[in-house]
Amino acid sequence: MKVAIIFGSKSDVDKMKGAANALKEFGVEYSAHILSAHRVPEKLVEVIDKLEDEGYECIIAGAGLAAHLPGVIASHTTLPVIGVPINAALNGMDSLLAIVQMPKSIPVATVGINNSYNAGMLAVQMLSLKYPEIKEKLNLYRKNMKSKFISENEEGVEL
Amino acid sequence: MKVAIIFGSKSDVDKMKGAANALKEFGVEYSAHILSAHRVPEKLVEVIDKLEDEGYECIIAGAGLAAHLPGVIASHTTLPVIGVPINAALNGMDSLLAIVQMPKSIPVATVGINNSYNAGMLAVQMLSLKYPEIKEKLNLYRKNMKSKFISENEEGVEL
Amino acid sequence: MKVAIIFGSKSDVDKMKGAANALKEFGVEYSAHILSAHRVPEKLVEVIDKLEDEGYECIIAGAGLAAHLPGVIASHTTLPVIGVPINAALNGMDSLLAIVQMPKSIPVATVGINNSYNAGMLAVQMLSLKYPEIKEKLNLYRKNMKSKFISENEEGVEL
Amino acid sequence: MKVAIIFGSKSDVDKMKGAANALKEFGVEYSAHILSAHRVPEKLVEVIDKLEDEGYECIIAGAGLAAHLPGVIASHTTLPVIGVPINAALNGMDSLLAIVQMPKSIPVATVGINNSYNAGMLAVQMLSLKYPEIKEKLNLYRKNMKSKFISENEEGVEL
Amino acid sequence: MKVAIIFGSKSDVDKMKGAANALKEFGVEYSAHILSAHRVPEKLVEVIDKLEDEGYECIIAGAGLAAHLPGVIASHTTLPVIGVPINAALNGMDSLLAIVQMPKSIPVATVGINNSYNAGMLAVQMLSLKYPEIKEKLNLYRKNMKSKFISENEEGVEL
Amino acid sequence: MKVAIIFGSKSDVDKMKGAANALKEFGVEYSAHILSAHRVPEKLVEVIDKLEDEGYECIIAGAGLAAHLPGVIASHTTLPVIGVPINAALNGMDSLLAIVQMPKSIPVATVGINNSYNAGMLAVQMLSLKYPEIKEKLNLYRKNMKSKFISENEEGVEL
Amino acid sequence: MKVAIIFGSKSDVDKMKGAANALKEFGVEYSAHILSAHRVPEKLVEVIDKLEDEGYECIIAGAGLAAHLPGVIASHTTLPVIGVPINAALNGMDSLLAIVQMPKSIPVATVGINNSYNAGMLAVQMLSLKYPEIKEKLNLYRKNMKSKFISENEEGVEL
Amino acid sequence: MKVAIIFGSKSDVDKMKGAANALKEFGVEYSAHILSAHRVPEKLVEVIDKLEDEGYECIIAGAGLAAHLPGVIASHTTLPVIGVPINAALNGMDSLLAIVQMPKSIPVATVGINNSYNAGMLAVQMLSLKYPEIKEKLNLYRKNMKSKFISENEEGVEL
Repeated sequence: MKVAIIFGSKSDVDKMKGAANALKEFGVEYSAHILSAHRVPEKLVEVIDKLEDEGYECIIAGAGLAAHLPGVIASHTTLPVIGVPINAALNGMDSLLAIVQMPKSIPVATVGINNSYNAGMLAVQMLSLKYPEIKEKLNLYRKNMKSKFISENEEGVEL
Repeated sequence: MKVAIIFGSKSDVDKMKGAANALKEFGVEYSAHILSAHRVPEKLVEVIDKLEDEGYECIIAGAGLAAHLPGVIASHTTLPVIGVPINAALNGMDSLLAIVQMPKSIPVATVGINNSYNAGMLAVQMLSLKYPEIKEKLNLYRKNMKSKFISENEEGVEL
Repeated sequence: MKVAIIFGSKSDVDKMKGAANALKEFGVEYSAHILSAHRVPEKLVEVIDKLEDEGYECIIAGAGLAAHLPGVIASHTTLPVIGVPINAALNGMDSLLAIVQMPKSIPVATVGINNSYNAGMLAVQMLSLKYPEIKEKLNLYRKNMKSKFISENEEGVEL
Repeated sequence: MKVAIIFGSKSDVDKMKGAANALKEFGVEYSAHILSAHRVPEKLVEVIDKLEDEGYECIIAGAGLAAHLPGVIASHTTLPVIGVPINAALNGMDSLLAIVQMPKSIPVATVGINNSYNAGMLAVQMLSLKYPEIKEKLNLYRKNMKSKFISENEEGVEL
Repeated sequence: MKVAIIFGSKSDVDKMKGAANALKEFGVEYSAHILSAHRVPEKLVEVIDKLEDEGYECIIAGAGLAAHLPGVIASHTTLPVIGVPINAALNGMDSLLAIVQMPKSIPVATVGINNSYNAGMLAVQMLSLKYPEIKEKLNLYRKNMKSKFISENEEGVEL
Repeated sequence: MKVAIIFGSKSDVDKMKGAANALKEFGVEYSAHILSAHRVPEKLVEVIDKLEDEGYECIIAGAGLAAHLPGVIASHTTLPVIGVPINAALNGMDSLLAIVQMPKSIPVATVGINNSYNAGMLAVQMLSLKYPEIKEKLNLYRKNMKSKFISENEEGVEL
Repeated sequence: MKVAIIFGSKSDVDKMKGAANALKEFGVEYSAHILSAHRVPEKLVEVIDKLEDEGYECIIAGAGLAAHLPGVIASHTTLPVIGVPINAALNGMDSLLAIVQMPKSIPVATVGINNSYNAGMLAVQMLSLKYPEIKEKLNLYRKNMKSKFISENEEGVEL
Repeated sequence: MKVAIIFGSKSDVDKMKGAANALKEFGVEYSAHILSAHRVPEKLVEVIDKLEDEGYECIIAGAGLAAHLPGVIASHTTLPVIGVPINAALNGMDSLLAIVQMPKSIPVATVGINNSYNAGMLAVQMLSLKYPEIKEKLNLYRKNMKSKFISENEEGVEL
């Protein structure tokens, strides 16, 4: 039960941390890889080609600008790929479109701009189909989220 | 191994057929449900609440305009939800943003505008984590896609 | 004569204060509720279902990103719902479209991005149809706004 | 209990009919007026100034392009004004922004692009605050909408 | 030879100063007026109605958001009206569209977002058709602009 | 009293006819020129350089895509230049921005997308500053427009 | 002196023909290749890897949607790559941004949406640096374009 | 082997430095020119007309707003022109469209918003067709880029 988190530069660490945080909450093992579809395309393919054999079951990829990374990864694996559009220009609209508008047959599961936490959550949901203990934790998480939300806001709010 | 495909109106059948087509190619059972987050919200919740017990493992939801359907479904289940933005206005940009920009903790796996086939493919990829026979078919599908592409374009093209 | 102001997080208080300020100016009673369409959907429905019986006549809902809150509320009540798009990404364009582009039959009265004051004003205008004292205050407010504007700018301005 | 529907040209009749249709369903009296904020501004003000005395309680205004009509009307009345962005260029984005982004104090209740039916519905919701018979019809309408939706889709759908 | 500069609030002074600066460079008399199409519509019409008799020959109007001011002024005068879109939201795109997309017969001469200096320049160009001394100054200005540009950049630049 | 109408291709005749129509209504002489900023830049400058000596007082320029024509003309003359964004792609948004966003000192008076009629009207308004007979016609035109609008819509409209 | 034209599907032939047409006009040899960055990534790399050895000096790549093809090619070669955004959705805006917004160090020379002819022209310009006969033809082409434009429009145009 | 870098103002030096940096890395001679298509159009043409005779083989032009500079240069030379959209408003979208959407026959090779480094790289790639020493350096650069990327990220990253 392992998830690979891939992104193109150390400067994206802050924006991709959310994915790791979500996975940690569910005890899902993960590794982070700095790889670029444009700078080290051969190395990227090399790494992707081994991921499945190494037991990875899902890949999260974050990228900005002409964000090809998630789509390129998806073209080299049949593992589900989750794409995180990172805002580097145009409020992230370039990145969102470059990730979500994939052609027929090679989908990328896209989450919101800069929302890497949700990428982690989506990976957890995918894994929960197979791993009952994750499913259990997910149901508990949802339940706790609800009660925490309600208790935190119980005393109301002044406007 | 069942997938639920949910959308808001019979007029969306043509745009959502792609999801069914992809699932059929892999022998994944599915059912189609016309439900609306805004017109029959209680019925929607009622149906969603039973999906998991009925053995559904993934939900595909397509919607246009202020496309709340996928997000509302996601708020009522921990099954992974795949959202298909349908173009009903503004070239589908309203629908894309209303689906993909979900808040922290409740992701929707978004695919391209009108690209319901990719929603089906993504569901297949998720299921393949758990079901080795689907994984096998998926690898074969990818292999066949490649050889078909190459053989179809072998004789070259005139420009 | 009561208005409910609903939004998804304490961090939105500053952006939603305008609605309260407008209502206060007209002596319209209001209450603020932190509720989320995605995190506590059942609680949200529970609260909405009681609003009408508790004498609420109008609901103001503010949300950002894939801003489903106003539309989800509108699907559970026949009270008029006023939506405030909050800018959390893309300059608020995602939120605006996710609120205003509601399907046939379930409208949300949408105001400008981050313009919760106008949501309060719109609620006052709605209430003024029924409550002559509000109508009177509204006419006075408009009159005062005009004379205040004119007197404030009477001495002209240097460019 | 009367609603005025105002728009700028006979060529908009088809796009504004929805508002009339919604009002007819609830037995709300309405009248249609062709008036333009830019071509006959004095006439427009003259008509607006009388609307309230003539018993109108709500105004629906539809416009395209630099759609000033709803906002100009709102500046001349304290009746609630509902704006319908009509798509005449740029998929209606110009019209939507020119209607919804009103300054502080003078709101226009904006509905979706070309969605005049929702403008009628919103007018009905506003009137229902004051007129119990409309409220009753509104609740019935909602109920019927739900059962009609469910019965129409009961036999399921083939994908 | 007088130009009226109209805008809606003292907070716009900085953004509208450019118009005055351009006019000053050509010795064109101007006056600044704070007026709002939405807050003081009658006062606005009152002022516009007198402008022509008072010798004004051109009107510059700046506005943000749903920027109706230039168009409303244009509907009340046959003097040329120059519109300055002010960025108050959405990078000024709302304002630009609300100013430039005027319907047939009632044009507003629109300049760039926040570019009030160009509005002043455009007024000068219009006046130069009638006033030879302005035409002369304009030709000189252009000539000086060119030689200043060239001399300022003569020594080249380091990259 | 002459206006030059310049555009880049015979295929734009239909979209630029409006400018001629407006000028004809006011008896303003005009000539049409097919010229391109990119294909015949020297010829363009040659023509512009003579326009003023030939008695032209205003230039209308229409262009699509990366619409440089109006701005390039403006850089070679101190006559007022009116720009018409022609929709050739992206709904005309590329053309609008390429025309209206001119740098400081070299304005182009921009009208709405495809709205060449308004370019003609704006030229007439500019000329009316100098030519009392045009001013008179303009006031009459406005008056007639109003009465025609009112009489045409007198019998009301069915919705 | 050879140019490779690469695109993802036979259905793009019409949109890419322009590139071939431009190259033909200059007698530049070219070949067309249907290849996809997502469907046959290994085959694509295999072909690109040989292009340089086979004497190709420039690559033109056209793609729609999340148009990764030009960027992926650029990551596997140091030959200049020219990208043609093809409009398949959102008026081609998705494709334009996915092509032009390449990260530092791996540029794609992007031309206008659907403008494959200009891609061919740009390839010719690049080749003309090295091949004097192409340079000569290019200068002639430009000269002919000018005289053809002028002679075609000599007799003027009626508006 | 010389490249001209042209832009409109000293204030753009920081944004255009990237182009020089890229050229320096490859030992390509360059010169920087401050010139404006709108302020000094004759001077601009004068400079462009001599560039080719002076041995320049490629031109890089950066501009913001209604960014005509690259296109105007392209209309006066058959040297390849590389355009850099500079963000001065609207996140650079105006500039991007005004540069990339050139009409048939006069291409501008457009790179990403503010990405002048890539303009330098693209110039290097063009020159490498002709100059084997540049080609060699380019291949080495690419190789070094890859090994540097890999070694920099070898020790992995913490998330």
